[in-house]
Amino acid sequence: MTSADPATRAALTDVGGSQTDGLGDMDPEEFRAAAHAAVDLMADYLAGLERFPVFPSVEPGSIRARLPSEPPEEPAPAGVLLADYQRLVEPNATHWQHPGFLAYFATTASGPGILGEMLTAAIGQNPMIWRTSPVGTELEQVVVDWLRQGVGLPPVFDGLITDTASTSSLIALAGARETAGFSVAGEGLAGREDVPQLRVYLSSEAHSSIDKACMTLGLGRSSLVHLPVDDDFAMRPDALERAITEDRSEGRRPIAVVATIGTTSSTSVDPVAAIADIAGREGVWLHVDAAYAGPVALIPERRAPFAGWERADSIVLNPHKWLFTPLDASLLLTRRMEALRDAFSLTRPYLQAPDGSEPPRDYSDFTPQLGRRFRALKLWFLIRWFGLAGLRRRIEEHVRLAHEFASWVDADPDFERLAPVPFSTVCFRYRPVRLGAAGGDGDRAMEARLDDLNARLIEAVNRTGDVFLSHTRLRGSYTLRVAIGNIRTEERHVARAWEILRREAARLDA
Amino acid sequence: MTSADPATRAALTDVGGSQTDGLGDMDPEEFRAAAHAAVDLMADYLAGLERFPVFPSVEPGSIRARLPSEPPEEPAPAGVLLADYQRLVEPNATHWQHPGFLAYFATTASGPGILGEMLTAAIGQNPMIWRTSPVGTELEQVVVDWLRQGVGLPPVFDGLITDTASTSSLIALAGARETAGFSVAGEGLAGREDVPQLRVYLSSEAHSSIDKACMTLGLGRSSLVHLPVDDDFAMRPDALERAITEDRSEGRRPIAVVATIGTTSSTSVDPVAAIADIAGREGVWLHVDAAYAGPVALIPERRAPFAGWERADSIVLNPHKWLFTPLDASLLLTRRMEALRDAFSLTRPYLQAPDGSEPPRDYSDFTPQLGRRFRALKLWFLIRWFGLAGLRRRIEEHVRLAHEFASWVDADPDFERLAPVPFSTVCFRYRPVRLGAAGGDGDRAMEARLDDLNARLIEAVNRTGDVFLSHTRLRGSYTLRVAIGNIRTEERHVARAWEILRREAARLDA
Repeated sequence: MTSADPATRAALTDVGGSQTDGLGDMDPEEFRAAAHAAVDLMADYLAGLERFPVFPSVEPGSIRARLPSEPPEEPAPAGVLLADYQRLVEPNATHWQHPGFLAYFATTASGPGILGEMLTAAIGQNPMIWRTSPVGTELEQVVVDWLRQGVGLPPVFDGLITDTASTSSLIALAGARETAGFSVAGEGLAGREDVPQLRVYLSSEAHSSIDKACMTLGLGRSSLVHLPVDDDFAMRPDALERAITEDRSEGRRPIAVVATIGTTSSTSVDPVAAIADIAGREGVWLHVDAAYAGPVALIPERRAPFAGWERADSIVLNPHKWLFTPLDASLLLTRRMEALRDAFSLTRPYLQAPDGSEPPRDYSDFTPQLGRRFRALKLWFLIRWFGLAGLRRRIEEHVRLAHEFASWVDADPDFERLAPVPFSTVCFRYRPVRLGAAGGDGDRAMEARLDDLNARLIEAVNRTGDVFLSHTRLRGSYTLRVAIGNIRTEERHVARAWEILRREAARLDA
Repeated sequence: MTSADPATRAALTDVGGSQTDGLGDMDPEEFRAAAHAAVDLMADYLAGLERFPVFPSVEPGSIRARLPSEPPEEPAPAGVLLADYQRLVEPNATHWQHPGFLAYFATTASGPGILGEMLTAAIGQNPMIWRTSPVGTELEQVVVDWLRQGVGLPPVFDGLITDTASTSSLIALAGARETAGFSVAGEGLAGREDVPQLRVYLSSEAHSSIDKACMTLGLGRSSLVHLPVDDDFAMRPDALERAITEDRSEGRRPIAVVATIGTTSSTSVDPVAAIADIAGREGVWLHVDAAYAGPVALIPERRAPFAGWERADSIVLNPHKWLFTPLDASLLLTRRMEALRDAFSLTRPYLQAPDGSEPPRDYSDFTPQLGRRFRALKLWFLIRWFGLAGLRRRIEEHVRLAHEFASWVDADPDFERLAPVPFSTVCFRYRPVRLGAAGGDGDRAMEARLDDLNARLIEAVNRTGDVFLSHTRLRGSYTLRVAIGNIRTEERHVARAWEILRREAARLDA
């Protein structure tokens, strides 16, 4: 199991012969043997995850230094590759699959998802157009619609699977840009007197992928209007309304507003219904970023934060976040597929079937990329292996664990919670009672001291290797995050994280 | 092996128990059993590829109709999923892995590449920044540099692995857009009086991904200048020079030229050295699209078509085309990483290490996406399992097979070759002697007749299921293509394709 196990290494290096003068691929029977050996590595890894520190003990450049700087001329057998994988890759990975990984938002790969990826690699589909993968195309139509139904959105939403939320949001904003009436896909934005400055509204807590999308699309960071948030880190609709009015009065053109359900720092929830009212009134595209929190909508009783999202023009929700899907899989739902087609399709309407029959779906008509992975298979497997009931049960459990953790923070006078917990992420900091309360000019000094204390605390906690947390800043304060959503995280891991936090905090004080 | 085999189905459905009230993931031992069963499906599939028709017998919508329209509430065991995979997915796939797949450009997955994808799915890395995957980041640095050395480019080229050539070229053109001096990532293109129309030059034979990139980037299709080609379908440098001069004189701003080594239709080669001269003189970014043909540069004796590409600002080369890598993997090499960072990074220079030490590489600084798959592992496996010598041998063999096929076409008076064969793709058509030569007004009627004849021929050939060809148009004529690059294609498959073409052509005549 570990890299030090010489028996395993010897067994692995027996796998696969030489192919010094061969043509063609690895022989299928050699592949079979090597792939069975790989499966054992994979299952051993998943069974023994807790033997690894979540974040490896490694410095930048140290892995590269252990690898040959020149490419090999001659072949190496599969067993050597697998042994090197175990020796060099496993110990130097950040273990996203580890149940103690509570950083960022989890991306964990469930068993059925991994099975899907294995078969996807072997069958080698490219569902860019129907003809290049009928099953890849139609299975995508099926799982997109299953997920739409699962989260309770109406049939007017169609969609597709992309690689990441960055791409999904870029596609959505390209749709918004295209519907603004300037034929941007055709005529571009440069050197045109008829195109004013275009504006995209989002809260100060929205994800940087929206910024990236605007940079890529030629809108620029200057098109972004980062609106202030309320005490719960939610976008203030009055600020949105004022910003739109001001922009219009100065000749700028509002094209989209991005509402987030589950922001990256605090998982705050923008008031989507109120924002949808404004977007509807103003004729502005509403994109909802629910990349992290979207799967919660599988649970009908927990749909309150989603109220109004059914009025969005587009919604992103990432199966590779809280739906246990191996990277990559992002779901983009939209009621305006034709706008995406206008933004990205190179085919002309006159190519449609003359008899008016529904032409087959060609997914690359809606994406910046032509080539596409067959991502529907792993989703088909995953939804069926868990069942919607099984997915709901796991998400519900993660929400429960987060609230339990929050209750421990709330009950401890030396810790302070810094944001509400609408989903499965707790934002907090260490604030020992012994430091007393600050006030007046003391506040700034106290804040600096707490920032330093918490930065040292997270470093000490992560150094244990048992858990891995990430941090953010809320209202300027250094904030620790415990984000639950890893499929392997159980109550004992959350309890262990809390125990380590308290222990390391006490050590800092000593 | 086939879907009709009840013994296999029964064995599969025994895999995996119920998990009706479970939390967490599939048990690792259940995963192990299911994954071993999946490996047998995969190995059986690869061993038995030729039992399938390359293109399945299926109509649009027919697969979807066989699947439940509503998502399942309750779980299904892994064995049922695997059996359904065999029953519904395998028979309805376009078999890119089939040795008779000679359409488009091949994307085939070699054994070592599939092993890499399997382990990638299980270890679940996201090398968006160094910290989220030290090994994913540093292994990417290693394989990027191995490939750079392999194709004989100087160390000034750095780079990264992206999902597709579409994304690689988009990134390159974003770099070009950014270096034009208008701070587009920051200020955008809209509503600016200081930004003229921007221009991107490419030949009429260049790939549509460049058009898509310009649409996405806000340059629009109108920014594209499709230049005429010579008799060998190569860009005419004189036309490039004239177009740039004309654009400048009319106040438009040239920002990039895209030269293609191996165009999509005919695999023609633009004169890169002459284009590099012009690009250098004009201060225009040179992007080289070698997505298909790039791997040929692994063979030093075959580098003539690549002369001058070492002067490019950026180069794309797809391992998931002619380097036997499972989709997705596109290599973007550039001598201007800092331009890509300017286009996509949200971090500021002042975040760099104060001691001037090299900060760790954060690959998402250079990409429109934040999240990234761990694509380096499969490339590491693949380069090592084949060795550069093994990769060269296979590519050389594909070139040999293509030239052999071309010689058969040339020797047959009823067939006509329509383009040179610089790499591994042959463009030709059926032109039976009995139709005689046309001339004057007869040309148009003859061309229409030949178009119809060849459209019927490819349909008949593909209907056999033994081979799968695609078509294009060259100088307006319907053109058949035999594109070799599938790792499993042997001489007998190419011979079989020729035999079927002649047989079906004779039947059309009958």
